[in-house]
Amino acid sequence: VKSEPYTAPVAPLVDDSWDDPPLAEGLSRIALACLVEPGNRELGQLVRARGVQDALDGVLDGRAVTGSLADAVASRLVAADVPLTVLGAHAVASRALETADRLGARIVTPADDEWPRQVEDLALISREDGEREHRNVDPPLCFWVRGAAPLRETLEKSVAVVGSRAVSSYGQHVTREFSFGLARQGWTVVSGGAFGVDATAHRTALGAGAATVAVLACGIERPYPAAHSSLFEQIAEQGLLLTEWPPGAAAYRMRFLTRNRVIAAATRGTIMVEAGTRSGARNTLTYARLLHRPAMVVPGPITSAMSVGCHAELRKPGTILVSRCDQVIEEIGPIGELAALDRGPERAEDALDSTARRLLDAVLPRKAQGAEQLAAVAGVSGLEARRALPMLVAHGFVVVNEAGKYRLAPRPKAPAS
Amino acid sequence: VKSEPYTAPVAPLVDDSWDDPPLAEGLSRIALACLVEPGNRELGQLVRARGVQDALDGVLDGRAVTGSLADAVASRLVAADVPLTVLGAHAVASRALETADRLGARIVTPADDEWPRQVEDLALISREDGEREHRNVDPPLCFWVRGAAPLRETLEKSVAVVGSRAVSSYGQHVTREFSFGLARQGWTVVSGGAFGVDATAHRTALGAGAATVAVLACGIERPYPAAHSSLFEQIAEQGLLLTEWPPGAAAYRMRFLTRNRVIAAATRGTIMVEAGTRSGARNTLTYARLLHRPAMVVPGPITSAMSVGCHAELRKPGTILVSRCDQVIEEIGPIGELAALDRGPERAEDALDSTARRLLDAVLPRKAQGAEQLAAVAGVSGLEARRALPMLVAHGFVVVNEAGKYRLAPRPKAPAS
Repeated sequence: VKSEPYTAPVAPLVDDSWDDPPLAEGLSRIALACLVEPGNRELGQLVRARGVQDALDGVLDGRAVTGSLADAVASRLVAADVPLTVLGAHAVASRALETADRLGARIVTPADDEWPRQVEDLALISREDGEREHRNVDPPLCFWVRGAAPLRETLEKSVAVVGSRAVSSYGQHVTREFSFGLARQGWTVVSGGAFGVDATAHRTALGAGAATVAVLACGIERPYPAAHSSLFEQIAEQGLLLTEWPPGAAAYRMRFLTRNRVIAAATRGTIMVEAGTRSGARNTLTYARLLHRPAMVVPGPITSAMSVGCHAELRKPGTILVSRCDQVIEEIGPIGELAALDRGPERAEDALDSTARRLLDAVLPRKAQGAEQLAAVAGVSGLEARRALPMLVAHGFVVVNEAGKYRLAPRPKAPAS
Repeated sequence: VKSEPYTAPVAPLVDDSWDDPPLAEGLSRIALACLVEPGNRELGQLVRARGVQDALDGVLDGRAVTGSLADAVASRLVAADVPLTVLGAHAVASRALETADRLGARIVTPADDEWPRQVEDLALISREDGEREHRNVDPPLCFWVRGAAPLRETLEKSVAVVGSRAVSSYGQHVTREFSFGLARQGWTVVSGGAFGVDATAHRTALGAGAATVAVLACGIERPYPAAHSSLFEQIAEQGLLLTEWPPGAAAYRMRFLTRNRVIAAATRGTIMVEAGTRSGARNTLTYARLLHRPAMVVPGPITSAMSVGCHAELRKPGTILVSRCDQVIEEIGPIGELAALDRGPERAEDALDSTARRLLDAVLPRKAQGAEQLAAVAGVSGLEARRALPMLVAHGFVVVNEAGKYRLAPRPKAPAS
């Protein structure tokens, strides 16, 4: 896979952006995401201190472009081939919006309801920890997303399942055990879409009828590896594809490391199921630890090279050994309790879109029904039902049985006091 | 195996015991070991507060016999069938000494040079911790020992290797890996002589030409299990058999738990190599933790019932995962450094008996020689050489190669400063 820097497609310019400050801010943010390599701490600090408009100004006139930001900006600005003005940058952004639309994707920014706020915890990773681990630790500026489910809700009860590309049969078994158990209990399995553990985790979650999210290290239109294109299509159907890179960006080694911080930050905890010494999954686990999210590891035989990375991580303080699914849920919290702590049950349902809400009204407490049947009752299409129901499962509203039929989840008891 | 309470053999009484206070104290201590079940905290506190003579008085006239001590004393006093006087108790003790002699064993008390002082750390385990784990946590009063090697030196650089009786082929492999590596680097492998992990640990250490110690939960003359009698003979030849129970005592479940505290206390750290949920090895590991000695566990596949106990222990704070022998040595300390910290190198060699010192003088720094050859040079018997050389290896004076030939160990560098 060779890199192809972002080239803005020819399209009309949005001229009225300055008249609408939130719109302008969104465009500035998307422009920065197109013009600067993700995760840059200097840029993030600039945005947090002076706002996104000022940060874009600073990048465009070169005032703010120092240190690591210079490297992060250099190649992109040249490749983008736009006039170094705010208007030019906004043209890049509005073309990006159109390209996303054409690709069946959308761009989600912090201004959107579906923005997963937990990724902003990445700003809390100290500069020293970040530099030791990897330079690009700052929160994402925006996400390119493919898939019908709302991003925030899908990630709200999510767990990362990561590991090596070269996976043993033991590792595959273990990945399936954990992914299936978590998916069946309403957790969204998040991984990186790679060969080995990642693919097994995604496929198992899909097979369990649950949502799964692949966080990519490249453009949304060309998920890597190409051999997984049908898997990625399935994920976009039943879950979400997610990336910080604009269309055209290719998957590089450094980008995988930058991407890993999002896998750790978007989820309630990370499980490393099998990893050799040099596995990138160890990097994801380190981010989980830096974010004070549970960093969980499945042990294996000490005679297996594929477990060496797991055992090395388990020797570090704060790593949690997990050998059963319930131990994971003990760390990341049972769904009922978390929902009660995070927000009232009313708000949980309010956050659903109208299709999902109509489907939820159609689901019965005791009698399990198929997606087509529920679609008919709710008055939505079969496709809409097949997309929305796994999301309702993922968020604990609905449970699915082995025949793929849905009924209402038992209500969690209100916490005492 | 049925219990047979200690019955003192008919033999002349040592009448002059009162004339020699240290001798009397030794006899009182041995008498208490014969009359009270080991590990009793009440008795230990009595001994530490008022001395062993007073404690024996208190036990004999019933003044001190309250609480758990009453249970610990009751059966034994009746079975011993002696007059409840100090003179009667000393008769029990002197007969025990004669019996030990007849059995080719010796009784070691804190008054002896070869007493392993580290076992007295058991007095530091709090009453609450002790009661939660097991009632009998106090230090041993004395040891019955079989084998030529000096007890203190043999245990000075020792490590416990424990695990389940029902061992998988994986567990056997792992036990061999660790026991061989440790034995070859001069560490004494200590275990409980049981089926499974214990036996594999002892046999591997013997095969590596090193000393190994089996800590028994019964009388020295009838090590349990009987099926291991030839193994126990080999251990007595090349290492040591060790117990707190007088001859005649049978192995009970509760005695194994009491015994386990000695395995943990006598060694610099405990490694649990494979253990199911209910393995007694977990009890040994808990004692190591309570004693602030490294509590090390080897992980295994989560699909194996034989690793469930290991993973449960690894989930407890303070347990150290080990997957390689060098990680164990990192915890318990390389021999050279420990020797330098504990005592000057002169004292180390001074502690050797004359046979060992003559053999050490015969060992060459570069040319490896066989035991018979060294025996001839040193002017000792072949049997003496075969006994003493593994002890010299165990203490890091000498190294043995795969052909079973010995040469001087490289001198550890003196610590800087």
